[in-house]
Amino acid sequence: MGEFELIRHYFQRTGPHPPGVVLGVGDDCALLQPDPGQRLAVSTDMLVEGRHFFADVDPVALGHKALAVNLSDLAAMGARPLGFTLALALPRADATWLAGFSAGLFALADAAGCPLVGGDTTQGPLNLSITVFGQVPPGQELRRSGARAGDEVWVSGQLGDARLALEALLGEIELAPERLARARQRLERPTPRLALGLELRGLASAAADVSDGLCGDLGHILAASGVGADLEVGALLGSDAISADLRAQPRERALRCALAGGDDYELVFTAPAAAREALLQAARAAATPVSCLGRISAEPGLRWRNESGQPLDLALASFDHFA
Amino acid sequence: MGEFELIRHYFQRTGPHPPGVVLGVGDDCALLQPDPGQRLAVSTDMLVEGRHFFADVDPVALGHKALAVNLSDLAAMGARPLGFTLALALPRADATWLAGFSAGLFALADAAGCPLVGGDTTQGPLNLSITVFGQVPPGQELRRSGARAGDEVWVSGQLGDARLALEALLGEIELAPERLARARQRLERPTPRLALGLELRGLASAAADVSDGLCGDLGHILAASGVGADLEVGALLGSDAISADLRAQPRERALRCALAGGDDYELVFTAPAAAREALLQAARAAATPVSCLGRISAEPGLRWRNESGQPLDLALASFDHFA
Repeated sequence: MGEFELIRHYFQRTGPHPPGVVLGVGDDCALLQPDPGQRLAVSTDMLVEGRHFFADVDPVALGHKALAVNLSDLAAMGARPLGFTLALALPRADATWLAGFSAGLFALADAAGCPLVGGDTTQGPLNLSITVFGQVPPGQELRRSGARAGDEVWVSGQLGDARLALEALLGEIELAPERLARARQRLERPTPRLALGLELRGLASAAADVSDGLCGDLGHILAASGVGADLEVGALLGSDAISADLRAQPRERALRCALAGGDDYELVFTAPAAAREALLQAARAAATPVSCLGRISAEPGLRWRNESGQPLDLALASFDHFA
Repeated sequence: MGEFELIRHYFQRTGPHPPGVVLGVGDDCALLQPDPGQRLAVSTDMLVEGRHFFADVDPVALGHKALAVNLSDLAAMGARPLGFTLALALPRADATWLAGFSAGLFALADAAGCPLVGGDTTQGPLNLSITVFGQVPPGQELRRSGARAGDEVWVSGQLGDARLALEALLGEIELAPERLARARQRLERPTPRLALGLELRGLASAAADVSDGLCGDLGHILAASGVGADLEVGALLGSDAISADLRAQPRERALRCALAGGDDYELVFTAPAAAREALLQAARAAATPVSCLGRISAEPGLRWRNESGQPLDLALASFDHFA
């Protein structure tokens, strides 16, 4: 199969363009038409075999995840998806792999209303680079820099299960099969929180997605906003942000997975305490659970305290590709 | 050096955002504000070590080329650059390489008015994936599908020298050092024809950039437009589209390089014969030479004839990563 046949067969879809897409795959550029006055939100994420996924990962799950991690950045900005491009390096044109990968990719693209509008295909070590485009009305975007002292700190969904699955798959820990199956879903099929991101427009003061671990990504918000946070381990461990599977683990492992695990693709965000009721209403409208973890303070730094008020004694580091 | 320090040191620049960029590197997404009513042109190209460049290529030249091949797609659409994202997989954080690469990248970005607005950095086999964004007024974009019978076929600049350099660097042919130095400039530092693309708005009926070879890329225009073309080898070989270095080569090699070489990053385009004077004026305004190679006809297919009117007897194939 040649390069252009591969693109036609697996990545070029017929039928009318969705709204906002004037010209899709097949010319020198795609052409998008954002709604009048809207800003364009852009993000890019690259996934490399052996770093971001195992060589034997289910290609359907990989297609899903490659797009999901990008959509998660749009969600964290409060942007509505417009489309995406895919640059793909493949060792060889393997029909079974391509059929699975494109099925997983397009299933999520369709669900999110985010069509593939262009791309590039080349031979090389397996590498998936996706760039997503979304739109957001001026001033309604969720930046990292808007957190203020007194705001509450929230997180969506559940943290740490992806890391739990990774440790089990690497053979570092043992998990019962049904626990591993559930955690593995979180690792391989994360849910981008697009609906919540849209509902948080005008409510959240700052937001980021949790890709490198809660401490690291909340740390980005604190640094960009010039503030700090005081959080309680007990509030976290007792909240809906910790799954029953993670709560069943030894305490130190549960905390490490939840605070510094990464690959969660939840949203961490801040909002004025006065917005609490509106925020819970927004979360219900988005059908996405949220948990409050503590408060923003004027004093820079991220401070975790345990149930007896002592500083948390746990070495935590967010993921760094070159550290 | 850690991942975030690497980004800050080599890829995050201080100072005010250029027009059109509301928010650059450092949040979950970049935010762009296209001019009112303009369409967004988007293209992506991935460069892989060993496929698109040699492992020992000058990193300054590689930084230039990685962006240039993407800007060439904007040029072929008649779009004005707004910005780009870079996803970069690196085997290791090599300071000398990164300094050179980012210098070459930013020199072209500054010259083209196309700022880096976001990206991703990861460890892995060397891979550069860039996505560019530009804007173009509705209806003024240069699509591949607009060529009509009777239109003339044009090409910008010169064809084939990049291929000539590649064959010499691979040891397949011998070139005098000064010839190789000139040809190598064309291979490693292609000039995206952005100014010409803008001037061709409203003049050209169709356009594409020459990345896989003239025959292949003109073939895309013919297929998308449902037309054919009759071109003369003599017109090509006698035109300014062939450099003195290429003309000095054996005829078959010169033709193969010019027609199926690839990596030229010139524009091939069509325009009504009545637009010839306006077109030459546009090329002068863009300070870019153009050459007329023949005519579009209603009969599908690309037909080359030699100086005596006979069909060209030369096997030509455009580059295919999986053929």
